[in-house]
Amino acid sequence: MFYFIIDILGTIAFAISGVLVAMEKKLDIFGVFIIAFVTAVGGGTLRDILIGSTPVVWLKQPVYIFTILGAVAFAVIFVNHLKYFRKSLFLFDTIGIGLYTMVGIEKGLSVDLLPVMCIGIGTITASFGGVIRDILCNEIPVIFRKEVYATVCILGGASYFLFRLLPVNEEYAHVAAIVVIIVTRILAVKFHIALPNIYRRKSL
Amino acid sequence: MFYFIIDILGTIAFAISGVLVAMEKKLDIFGVFIIAFVTAVGGGTLRDILIGSTPVVWLKQPVYIFTILGAVAFAVIFVNHLKYFRKSLFLFDTIGIGLYTMVGIEKGLSVDLLPVMCIGIGTITASFGGVIRDILCNEIPVIFRKEVYATVCILGGASYFLFRLLPVNEEYAHVAAIVVIIVTRILAVKFHIALPNIYRRKSL
Amino acid sequence: MFYFIIDILGTIAFAISGVLVAMEKKLDIFGVFIIAFVTAVGGGTLRDILIGSTPVVWLKQPVYIFTILGAVAFAVIFVNHLKYFRKSLFLFDTIGIGLYTMVGIEKGLSVDLLPVMCIGIGTITASFGGVIRDILCNEIPVIFRKEVYATVCILGGASYFLFRLLPVNEEYAHVAAIVVIIVTRILAVKFHIALPNIYRRKSL
Repeated sequence: MFYFIIDILGTIAFAISGVLVAMEKKLDIFGVFIIAFVTAVGGGTLRDILIGSTPVVWLKQPVYIFTILGAVAFAVIFVNHLKYFRKSLFLFDTIGIGLYTMVGIEKGLSVDLLPVMCIGIGTITASFGGVIRDILCNEIPVIFRKEVYATVCILGGASYFLFRLLPVNEEYAHVAAIVVIIVTRILAVKFHIALPNIYRRKSL
Repeated sequence: MFYFIIDILGTIAFAISGVLVAMEKKLDIFGVFIIAFVTAVGGGTLRDILIGSTPVVWLKQPVYIFTILGAVAFAVIFVNHLKYFRKSLFLFDTIGIGLYTMVGIEKGLSVDLLPVMCIGIGTITASFGGVIRDILCNEIPVIFRKEVYATVCILGGASYFLFRLLPVNEEYAHVAAIVVIIVTRILAVKFHIALPNIYRRKSL
Repeated sequence: MFYFIIDILGTIAFAISGVLVAMEKKLDIFGVFIIAFVTAVGGGTLRDILIGSTPVVWLKQPVYIFTILGAVAFAVIFVNHLKYFRKSLFLFDTIGIGLYTMVGIEKGLSVDLLPVMCIGIGTITASFGGVIRDILCNEIPVIFRKEVYATVCILGGASYFLFRLLPVNEEYAHVAAIVVIIVTRILAVKFHIALPNIYRRKSL
């Protein structure tokens, strides 16, 4: 139940971030909904397609589509007041990527993937909704350029497998990894930590 | 047989619309063919991938690839005369999206999806070929901006499930939904009806 | 064993070509890795998704992810010296597309696809990693515009099925098709052969 609430709050935060990007592109209401939808469920959809778990999860659980419809309606109506929710949305988003990373890792483990692949699948689950959003909006994905978004997922996923080496309950490793993701992301945003950009100094 | 002819005419109309977009981007002949191909079969391919019906349909039925090859050859050779076919192409395209919406809905029902998901799958079948075409051509998908394309699919799909509540033969509901899609689309184009664009009035 | 070495060399060449494109877009190190990764395995991933062979191949064989990590590290560190490897990289790339085309064709045959579909699947395997790379980098895919990349895969795939009509060992047909791809590509690049671009002379 606790996880379910986090999942819904994360879905709302992801959907609203999609609405804001879509509005900047002056899309119509259908376009805004689709961008919100792929932002929220795109990562999990790509994960399900890559591992072959079909029909993909949102086709089987209608709670996602209705949550996203509600979030889009809310965001479109209250767009001028969303700034008052900015901190809540950042928090939901951050808790969301922590949860989604672990959901992806568990799905990877359930089909017997190696830890390194599970971390990859967890990162895809948490961060590739935004990649698909940016592609549909004709932008180079922001997480390839300046966000330490995927990096915290990789860190969190790696720490999960490290924690499991310790003599602790698996559930603790799970929660600890989510905490690592949340804390790392908040610190990274607070202190403006980013990955180095790589320039090509001379033409080949 | 009747459905098969509509399917082929729709494929031709979709492929030719792809050729016209690809030519504006000055692609080479391989690029033109690929754009025509994804426009024609991209929606059904995405549907099959999402529900896990693989190999996807065009891999199993070679009629699509040969129809598209023929349509591309025709469009490239007679590009200066395509304007004489504009009305026919619009009609084929419109009948095509009606049919494809219902094909998608039936495929959704066959894997026990809820009506709301079937409508989504039908809309994807009919309209996401154009989305993939626009992404490959480096454009924000036109149906997110100014076409009432997906909207008529959603309307038609919803009316199908409404018609099925009536004490009529399922086949009638099927045909009636296609008619709803065709009539709505013609009216929308004729009277320049479009969804409202959503602007973000103030920065967050 | 021989094929395995070609596969790894091809993966390295594809990954490095991804690094070079990503650097021009000034991506951060995560973005550079993802672009290298999709360039190297994107074609095979799309193939596996279309035919339903999941989990996709790189999730099951960790050799790819580690090879790509090594290739990215090498390319980023020695970017100013990559010009000395240009000919080797072109050769690896060319041998790679020959091999990948045949890998795709064999996977198509293993799920009973018709020859024309196997050729398509082989071409997707060899050339659509670059298509996904270009889409993620917000460019119209280069193989749709000016590279005779996919065309040589189609030629090679078709010649494989022609060779099999001859009374020779299947293995010979296999190698002969790869040789056709390598030779055609080298000749096309040497003599600047390209497909004609198609312009739309008059607006519809």
